[in-house]
Amino acid sequence: VIYVALLHHPVVNRQGEVIVSAVTNLDIHDIARVARTYGVSGYFVVTPLREQQALVQNLVDHWMKGPGGDLNPDRREAMQLVRIVGGLEAVQEAVKAETGTHPSLYATTAREWPGAVSWQGLRRQLRAGRGSAVLLFGTASGLDNSILESSDGVLTPIEDGREYNHLAVRSAAAIALDRLLGSRI
Amino acid sequence: VIYVALLHHPVVNRQGEVIVSAVTNLDIHDIARVARTYGVSGYFVVTPLREQQALVQNLVDHWMKGPGGDLNPDRREAMQLVRIVGGLEAVQEAVKAETGTHPSLYATTAREWPGAVSWQGLRRQLRAGRGSAVLLFGTASGLDNSILESSDGVLTPIEDGREYNHLAVRSAAAIALDRLLGSRI
Repeated sequence: VIYVALLHHPVVNRQGEVIVSAVTNLDIHDIARVARTYGVSGYFVVTPLREQQALVQNLVDHWMKGPGGDLNPDRREAMQLVRIVGGLEAVQEAVKAETGTHPSLYATTAREWPGAVSWQGLRRQLRAGRGSAVLLFGTASGLDNSILESSDGVLTPIEDGREYNHLAVRSAAAIALDRLLGSRI
Repeated sequence: VIYVALLHHPVVNRQGEVIVSAVTNLDIHDIARVARTYGVSGYFVVTPLREQQALVQNLVDHWMKGPGGDLNPDRREAMQLVRIVGGLEAVQEAVKAETGTHPSLYATTAREWPGAVSWQGLRRQLRAGRGSAVLLFGTASGLDNSILESSDGVLTPIEDGREYNHLAVRSAAAIALDRLLGSRI
């Protein structure tokens, strides 16, 4: 059972300072559609800011209850996966309530990290299928080190060893789910 | 030598009618960054509408010549790959001028297509590395059949056989380049 969480805090800016980033509409849409495609159980949008939580709720409601979903039922189906929470603890509690298991947290980063987990390795582990896992993504310039340090595993950068490594988090999430759950056709 | 082209015409809407779609800013940004990450030689944004071409040119100029690139040199580096053209013929001419070879065109679609090429198959072919290839993506609800019929190959849908198949073109392009050019770590 795999979940995705997009964190808007604690993440870093280009200068490496810890910030709260603003929610981007297309992060909600694109990652919800990818999550639905690959059979992910839920997509947590994580921000401590109440106003930002309300903005995301309005967006989701437009597709779930409002006119959007009638015009585009596929989008409604993806939006059903979105859950809005204030922090990682709430993510873990929600997954525990749904699955009965305390989830393992796997963080993603574009930075080198000692002891990083390979994509193939986590793919095999997820296939073995014990317990639940949450894949963590950071907005802005990525997850703060505090998240990497406290997670159960940190994945290797998506194209480790290439000279350019500045993917949008939307692109990183798409590639990550394909690597971990894709059908390899 | 591989190129990417994002077509805004001829593409279809949800009703299957052929339309000219409007350019989306984040399609330019996200796919340019993915293209740069995976070492793609160029990213063609294809629209027959002069006004839309000018809009894209303004966006690219902001990063190439304007304040954007000074603040964010990584984005400038990605934007350098963007070329704005009116149609597929212009894409082929540009690739021929750059590489000296007439490129093979590979179309992507979420629909079933008889004789579709597998991702593994095209990956091997690109590795063999003869000539040049352009990977075609459609905005809106995807490329019109006329493009699929006239291309040199049509790729299988990204997650063929799954019940839900509605990725953003940004997500599809990220997954496609990772499947064809990714380091498989």
